Amino acid sequence: MFKEIFENVRQGSPLIHNITNYVTVNDCANMLLACGGSPIMADDPGDAVEITAVCGGLNINIGTLNQRTVPTMFAAGKRSNELGHPVVLDPVGAGASTLRTETALRLLEEVSFSVIRGNISEIKTLALGSGTTKGVDADVADKVTEENLDGAVAFAKAFAKRVGAVIAVTGAIDIVTDGERAFCIRNGRPEMSSVTGTGCQLSALTAAFVTANRERPLEAAAAAVCAMGLCGEIAFRRMTELDGNASYRNYIIDAMYRLTPTALEEGARYEVR
Amino acid sequence: MFKEIFENVRQGSPLIHNITNYVTVNDCANMLLACGGSPIMADDPGDAVEITAVCGGLNINIGTLNQRTVPTMFAAGKRSNELGHPVVLDPVGAGASTLRTETALRLLEEVSFSVIRGNISEIKTLALGSGTTKGVDADVADKVTEENLDGAVAFAKAFAKRVGAVIAVTGAIDIVTDGERAFCIRNGRPEMSSVTGTGCQLSALTAAFVTANRERPLEAAAAAVCAMGLCGEIAFRRMTELDGNASYRNYIIDAMYRLTPTALEEGARYEVR
Amino acid sequence: MFKEIFENVRQGSPLIHNITNYVTVNDCANMLLACGGSPIMADDPGDAVEITAVCGGLNINIGTLNQRTVPTMFAAGKRSNELGHPVVLDPVGAGASTLRTETALRLLEEVSFSVIRGNISEIKTLALGSGTTKGVDADVADKVTEENLDGAVAFAKAFAKRVGAVIAVTGAIDIVTDGERAFCIRNGRPEMSSVTGTGCQLSALTAAFVTANRERPLEAAAAAVCAMGLCGEIAFRRMTELDGNASYRNYIIDAMYRLTPTALEEGARYEVR
Repeated sequence: MFKEIFENVRQGSPLIHNITNYVTVNDCANMLLACGGSPIMADDPGDAVEITAVCGGLNINIGTLNQRTVPTMFAAGKRSNELGHPVVLDPVGAGASTLRTETALRLLEEVSFSVIRGNISEIKTLALGSGTTKGVDADVADKVTEENLDGAVAFAKAFAKRVGAVIAVTGAIDIVTDGERAFCIRNGRPEMSSVTGTGCQLSALTAAFVTANRERPLEAAAAAVCAMGLCGEIAFRRMTELDGNASYRNYIIDAMYRLTPTALEEGARYEVR
Repeated sequence: MFKEIFENVRQGSPLIHNITNYVTVNDCANMLLACGGSPIMADDPGDAVEITAVCGGLNINIGTLNQRTVPTMFAAGKRSNELGHPVVLDPVGAGASTLRTETALRLLEEVSFSVIRGNISEIKTLALGSGTTKGVDADVADKVTEENLDGAVAFAKAFAKRVGAVIAVTGAIDIVTDGERAFCIRNGRPEMSSVTGTGCQLSALTAAFVTANRERPLEAAAAAVCAMGLCGEIAFRRMTELDGNASYRNYIIDAMYRLTPTALEEGARYEVR
Repeated sequence: MFKEIFENVRQGSPLIHNITNYVTVNDCANMLLACGGSPIMADDPGDAVEITAVCGGLNINIGTLNQRTVPTMFAAGKRSNELGHPVVLDPVGAGASTLRTETALRLLEEVSFSVIRGNISEIKTLALGSGTTKGVDADVADKVTEENLDGAVAFAKAFAKRVGAVIAVTGAIDIVTDGERAFCIRNGRPEMSSVTGTGCQLSALTAAFVTANRERPLEAAAAAVCAMGLCGEIAFRRMTELDGNASYRNYIIDAMYRLTPTALEEGARYEVR
């Protein structure tokens, strides 16, 4: 199934509008190109509504939100909803500041999302309406482990049902659910967290996968999460003892560029709960 | 001739002011350093007019234009004109939104450009006053091929004459013309389009080449286009089967860092029409 | 001593708030991760004051300052002062425009900095209250050499005493002083200046080192300067004849990722004057 989903990305070459942070935006663009999609960035209110209309999907990432870009997120999100485009939300740092938490919560109210992807602390903040995220990384106390996986799956399913979106909680074990079924995914490497923006890249990737597979957002999001983790594994095998997180960053994107639909199908490691 | 042009860049080390998008700005900076130039970025109206005065040339790229940076483009462009500095325009996404199209057209009216570099869809938008660019890539229907090359050359020449600037239309075959003569360039690799920002890098590079060779902007722009394409070829030969677009990005910049004026002279593939 | 200082960074994993330019921000984030720290970027006034409070230290870099981010620098700087967090200033381009010079001078008046890191032209601009920096690079006439080192050390010491901060003047020979003692550091490679943002990365790194070693900012800043230079040396030894500044950029960050506290202790080359 993931094979076909990835083939649709490669063949459909979805054009994705990204309103995203300036820290990792270049990597998001190259990751979109690597998977077969095409990126465009536009964050001014006077530009973004038209740009989103010529695209197939929208990726909203609040990583360096500001007074000018927050209204753009709402305007582009609503326009994408009108057009029936898939919209992905990456609530970077929700819980770490009032502006981030409230912007993410208001976006949830006013925009309909296909997929919301974040770490467990960010997703908990959205589900509970408040939080105390430490920066942009998940709180250690929140982390999803084999021991608390059942509870985390139940939590993610309940939140997915409530907001009517696919929820992707990523970490050591990833959970992707539409409220009914949950993919528990074990691809990836812990070293990926030493590269800035692997989460942002995954959100952009997810937008491409969901846009090219609009009739099955759950499977498309799960395929994107597996693909990213698998590329982290492939890239890690390439590391020499001189390589560090900068080369690893490049190798992960390179791996996506080289990844075949068949390799994704065979390398994806998940169970459905 | 290109040998001498490139030597002037290496020796003159032109300082280029870039008002450019935040997606590819880091690559533009490293590409400028790779060719022997020096970058500075400043996009606030209160900063850019003074910064442009300490530089030798200006590169305006509208890739992620916004309410704050659009006025800066006009102010810095006019100041550069007063000082006699070469100014390059990269009309990223002109045709994809009203703001982009109108900003580019107004810039053409109010600022005098040495070179305008874009893909064929963007340049057609500027020439016709409107357009329907699909995102930031050229429309397939517009593409310059061996079959329609004569017509494309005639079009570019006419537009160059009308606006009084060198026009660089880049794609599979590049056309660089001042209205009288046209360099038709066949350097480059199709894989370059899988790296975000190779066009932006070329515009920055062009600004450096034109600034270091102010008396011959046509030849300088053509040399920059050849150099970029040649680096794409050199970098491609270095690719292993594990490398993808992220490593290719690095290898292209690396190739420019290592490129000698003699290698440019020998590797440039063009005809003059 | 530097061994222990670096161990504190690796173990303490300081979270650093960066208000920095969009040119080199991704490299700053990966450099912070490489040294064992953690980055967060927030530059909106409505976001940054809260974000700075959840961090351990603050890095202010004026490289692409604008009307929106300048007030954020003051607000976050003052909040960090209230909380007793170390604050680093990188006055990029001070002397090249009135806005940059005046912003840096006002920041010096209103915010208490632990470390100010810049090239000699930028630091001279701050010390003299005006300057004529050519872009973002040091003026050739200003450069610190073996011949003028005594005078440069005396100048840096006097400025450090006056502003009550550690001053780090970086170049071919680096000077790091608190007004009493000065570390004269000879690590590094001239090729590092062909990579955009090695100075910005060093400022971010310095923030991490000082935050993890709050009781000794002078030694922590000196250790950061040695570590950066040492990584430049290690990365340079890895360069092949095909590699240029793009690969060098990656190798420097990789080297930091792999650097051990013992290797820093052994590789640091400095004298105290």
